[in-house]
Amino acid sequence: MLITPGKLLAQINSPSDLKKLDQAQLVQLCEELRHFIIDNVSVYGGHFGASLGVVELTVALHYVFNSPYDQLVWDVGHQAYGHKILTGRREAFHTNRVYKGISGFPKRKESEYDAFGVGHSSTSVSAALGMAYASKYLGLSDKQHVAIIGDGALTGGMAFEGLNHAGVSGTNLLIILNDNCMSIDPNVGALKDYLTDITTSKTYNQLKDDVWKLLGKLSKFGRNAQEIVSKIENGIKSTLLSQSNLFESLNLRYFGPVDGHDVAHLTAVLEDLKKIKGPKILHCITVKGKGYAPAEKGNATTWHSPGLFDKITGEIYKKTPAQPQAPKYQDVFGHTLVELAKQNDKIFGITPAMPSGSSLNIMMKEMPDRAIDVGIAEQHAVTFSAGLATQGLVPFCNIYSSFMQRAYDQVIHDVCIQNLPVNFCLDRAGFAGSDGPTHHGAYDLAYFRCLPNLIVSAPMNEQELRNLMYTAQLPRKERAFSIRYPRGQGVMPNWRTPFEKIAIGTGRKIKEGDELALLTLGHIGNYAVEVCNRMEKQGVSIAHYDLRFVKPLDEVLLHEVFAKFKKIITLEDGCIQGGFGSAILEFMAECNYQADVKRLGIPDFVIEHGEQIELHRECGIDPDGIQQAVMAMLETAKA
Amino acid sequence: MLITPGKLLAQINSPSDLKKLDQAQLVQLCEELRHFIIDNVSVYGGHFGASLGVVELTVALHYVFNSPYDQLVWDVGHQAYGHKILTGRREAFHTNRVYKGISGFPKRKESEYDAFGVGHSSTSVSAALGMAYASKYLGLSDKQHVAIIGDGALTGGMAFEGLNHAGVSGTNLLIILNDNCMSIDPNVGALKDYLTDITTSKTYNQLKDDVWKLLGKLSKFGRNAQEIVSKIENGIKSTLLSQSNLFESLNLRYFGPVDGHDVAHLTAVLEDLKKIKGPKILHCITVKGKGYAPAEKGNATTWHSPGLFDKITGEIYKKTPAQPQAPKYQDVFGHTLVELAKQNDKIFGITPAMPSGSSLNIMMKEMPDRAIDVGIAEQHAVTFSAGLATQGLVPFCNIYSSFMQRAYDQVIHDVCIQNLPVNFCLDRAGFAGSDGPTHHGAYDLAYFRCLPNLIVSAPMNEQELRNLMYTAQLPRKERAFSIRYPRGQGVMPNWRTPFEKIAIGTGRKIKEGDELALLTLGHIGNYAVEVCNRMEKQGVSIAHYDLRFVKPLDEVLLHEVFAKFKKIITLEDGCIQGGFGSAILEFMAECNYQADVKRLGIPDFVIEHGEQIELHRECGIDPDGIQQAVMAMLETAKA
Repeated sequence: MLITPGKLLAQINSPSDLKKLDQAQLVQLCEELRHFIIDNVSVYGGHFGASLGVVELTVALHYVFNSPYDQLVWDVGHQAYGHKILTGRREAFHTNRVYKGISGFPKRKESEYDAFGVGHSSTSVSAALGMAYASKYLGLSDKQHVAIIGDGALTGGMAFEGLNHAGVSGTNLLIILNDNCMSIDPNVGALKDYLTDITTSKTYNQLKDDVWKLLGKLSKFGRNAQEIVSKIENGIKSTLLSQSNLFESLNLRYFGPVDGHDVAHLTAVLEDLKKIKGPKILHCITVKGKGYAPAEKGNATTWHSPGLFDKITGEIYKKTPAQPQAPKYQDVFGHTLVELAKQNDKIFGITPAMPSGSSLNIMMKEMPDRAIDVGIAEQHAVTFSAGLATQGLVPFCNIYSSFMQRAYDQVIHDVCIQNLPVNFCLDRAGFAGSDGPTHHGAYDLAYFRCLPNLIVSAPMNEQELRNLMYTAQLPRKERAFSIRYPRGQGVMPNWRTPFEKIAIGTGRKIKEGDELALLTLGHIGNYAVEVCNRMEKQGVSIAHYDLRFVKPLDEVLLHEVFAKFKKIITLEDGCIQGGFGSAILEFMAECNYQADVKRLGIPDFVIEHGEQIELHRECGIDPDGIQQAVMAMLETAKA
Repeated sequence: MLITPGKLLAQINSPSDLKKLDQAQLVQLCEELRHFIIDNVSVYGGHFGASLGVVELTVALHYVFNSPYDQLVWDVGHQAYGHKILTGRREAFHTNRVYKGISGFPKRKESEYDAFGVGHSSTSVSAALGMAYASKYLGLSDKQHVAIIGDGALTGGMAFEGLNHAGVSGTNLLIILNDNCMSIDPNVGALKDYLTDITTSKTYNQLKDDVWKLLGKLSKFGRNAQEIVSKIENGIKSTLLSQSNLFESLNLRYFGPVDGHDVAHLTAVLEDLKKIKGPKILHCITVKGKGYAPAEKGNATTWHSPGLFDKITGEIYKKTPAQPQAPKYQDVFGHTLVELAKQNDKIFGITPAMPSGSSLNIMMKEMPDRAIDVGIAEQHAVTFSAGLATQGLVPFCNIYSSFMQRAYDQVIHDVCIQNLPVNFCLDRAGFAGSDGPTHHGAYDLAYFRCLPNLIVSAPMNEQELRNLMYTAQLPRKERAFSIRYPRGQGVMPNWRTPFEKIAIGTGRKIKEGDELALLTLGHIGNYAVEVCNRMEKQGVSIAHYDLRFVKPLDEVLLHEVFAKFKKIITLEDGCIQGGFGSAILEFMAECNYQADVKRLGIPDFVIEHGEQIELHRECGIDPDGIQQAVMAMLETAKA
């Protein structure tokens, strides 16, 4: 069912169509755009609250600025649905986040209107500043550069690095602070409190005015009073007021706060700001989920990405499966950590702004003093965890694989070089699915495996995850411990298995076999089980080993493998360069074994979005692809 | 020549000795400590200006706080010489930064007084906050946690992430802002201007007081005036004053600025602050190089780490070599970039706070609008460069290999996934030398090789560096281009060779041979030349190939190698897991070649500080070690 756009929206195939509207029509257009988003997302799924919150801002930006000449840079990007719909992707919008469809985030390859690709947080100021610097150098003084960044994204240190540079750049940069008090979960940190303060205690500019007026009145009380007033005035002016705002401290002219849902006012303000040279910030107050009552009144985290729902009743559809399902790895992590923390009072849980995504929210609810959301701040999360570990605590720092890239130096510099026993849980390892390449956890095996003092593991199922977590929290003086697992369901409906210690660096023989050995790491090993079964039915005997640790490798097991097999296939849902398969090659070379080794994994290009199984198929690491590789290798044996 | 400490300093073997002194003796102790540092560094070398700037602060901290129970966390750490000398390492201090000697940075393994190891910037707030959080949880309410951070380090986004969390933590955390307006080079950015402002426009607190006093006087002017005054007071109080300071915006109580060279006042202030609960910041104004006239008056960048010098005259010793020397790779980079930028007006140079270290300062001087120091902000540097590239400019973003770890996500998310033609120059690749493990560039080959849309190269000499840079600036629509090279001298005294384009992904045959092939990458290949010569003299014919690119690999050349040789040794100055050697193993496996391959590189543990050649020897990748590996492999051939 294709969604029919409203009358005005139906005419808009690019921002130039939008500019043909009267200013007075914009309110109706916003209404239509909002409903188009609601209609689409309720039927096709996707991110929700963020895009509803910036409908007016999006319309105003495209009405006032001249994209793609002017550069609009959306931070994070899951709020850019309105932008996509207004810039030629309305008819394709039902393919949003679908395999081969349009991306859920701005993407340069997809449209010239997407000035900068995104998915991770806090990059927009730096990117837009680079563009603005280039324009300054190229003499394009009329060109506008706008970064639209949420208050959550502003807690990422990278945004601060950008602001610090922007303040002295003299470039034509407008930063729009989209302040809705939320990341995916409620925003945290001192900055949030500050923004709330300047918003709620009347407006900052209003206060400025009041003070001047009052001082004016005072001066009527005679010469003595005038002098005193003048002294105060100078004092306040020179120091307090000019720097009384965090952003003005950084030499950014601050405007606002303004109502981010008043499209007429927004267009007027943006027109004004276009004329003001230099770096500046406009503070917009918006509401996540604006205009859709269930989202506005309900839980903003739930409505960040609600899944399919009945747009009339606001009921979010839940599948009720006929039989018990395997849990999500996320929930196994969340519940297991609480279970362990009840037994071990040294355990702490840390997440950088992903309490619901990682399921650390379970522990935050049960043990609020021991589970901490530090905000969008992966770097801080890791070094903060290292600090906890120096005091004998046992941190479990949960970071999505692709976000751990942000904290790579902290893992090396603050954890591994110091040999501290910090535990990392890498969620969303392998393909993230419909979020696409920015969120795929493709590189962690390669980028962690090369580090000293780091144990690198991946469970094949829920029981293994529990046992790895159990093992990681046992007293340990040194070495960091990383456990990676994918987004989504495991394979064990009855997953609350008793804890067992796993000897570090030991794998498991899943199945005996004769003709070829499949070596796997992590959840994707379940595909290998299926392939072995299929081959067994064809009378072909394949051995399967789940290595469990890519570092340290189980050398005993590998000697067994290489002594017996000359045909070996490795399987991982990580990049093929430098990953698990390469570790096996290194072992083989060091021990002077000779064998045919075929490595299956994520190939060396950017894999787009889609269901995990679709992406596995594309990479030849779904059951069919694995089976083909097995058969091809057995063929060469016969040839 | 061992340096004799002054009378007071000679008695101090731990902070408890220091605490026995009268407060009045501290000035003399500072004097003695300062001279001990000057005497040592002038004779033995090391960092200089930073430690001189914090002599009084160091003495005051150890006088007031109870280290190691209280936690002192030094940011970056090259200012911690005084701390080391006062905490039991005075007699070992002449071994500072020497192979097997003490480290130039705080290091947990070295001393219980080193609460957190360091070397990179901006980590101290996060680490100390982790400790403070742990103490809060463990009920150690008397325990103090102090992060000492420079104004330069404060520009690193990670510090901001820490501050944002600290402000809502309710922990016992004291942040000391050591404000000297410098990183290694002069500090940049809006924050620097802000700090200068609050420092120079009288003190902020003083102003606060003045305003209150004046308002008090005004209220004498009758009831009407009193009302107005009260209105102003409330207005100012509620909004302006409580947030009129950047740090107070983040809910950190702000104290200062204070004179960081007045040890008596510092001890008094620190005693007071010890009693104030919650997160707070003390702003100290210090002078880099304080107390040594040539450093105070001279160029602070030069005196950051001056090398050996005559402490009486302040003359920095320069070796004048008998014959022309090969240049430093850094200078080849710096001059070559200017040369190229004169021909190609699209070229920009970007450095995160390392203009002198990277020699980008050459371009900053000649073309100030096209060479940019963005501050200690590696993440921003990379995404800013990506922004430039979207507008058709040609950025050369120069970041030390170990600091590039900080920008890993930005390389992936903002450059590689978007397939943007950004050029990276990775300085200090391989061993950094006396700076030690935090600065070694050990992992970049592994962590870059696994990324799509990235060319990964390393020049073997100056000419190759020039030609790679020339090639990287030729028009290119996509793919990022990384060029890694070591700290220090190359091999070509006459290095200003004409530019030649290098076909991407092509290596070079350096020498024919029969019995074994040495495959090398980068500058360390020069050791292989020496080994080949030695072996030649022994009548053994070794082939040598310089692969030049680890990605893409020169497959034509490698087919030649594997067709001819069954004995192959790979050599790199990068980590052995997942690096260049592993890339060769992957090629071999994919093409079904069989050969003995021995990989030489940096083994899988933390390599400490020392001269590069000492560390190469330790790892078996100096000429002797390589030769031994060659001979061992040839032996097995015969056996």
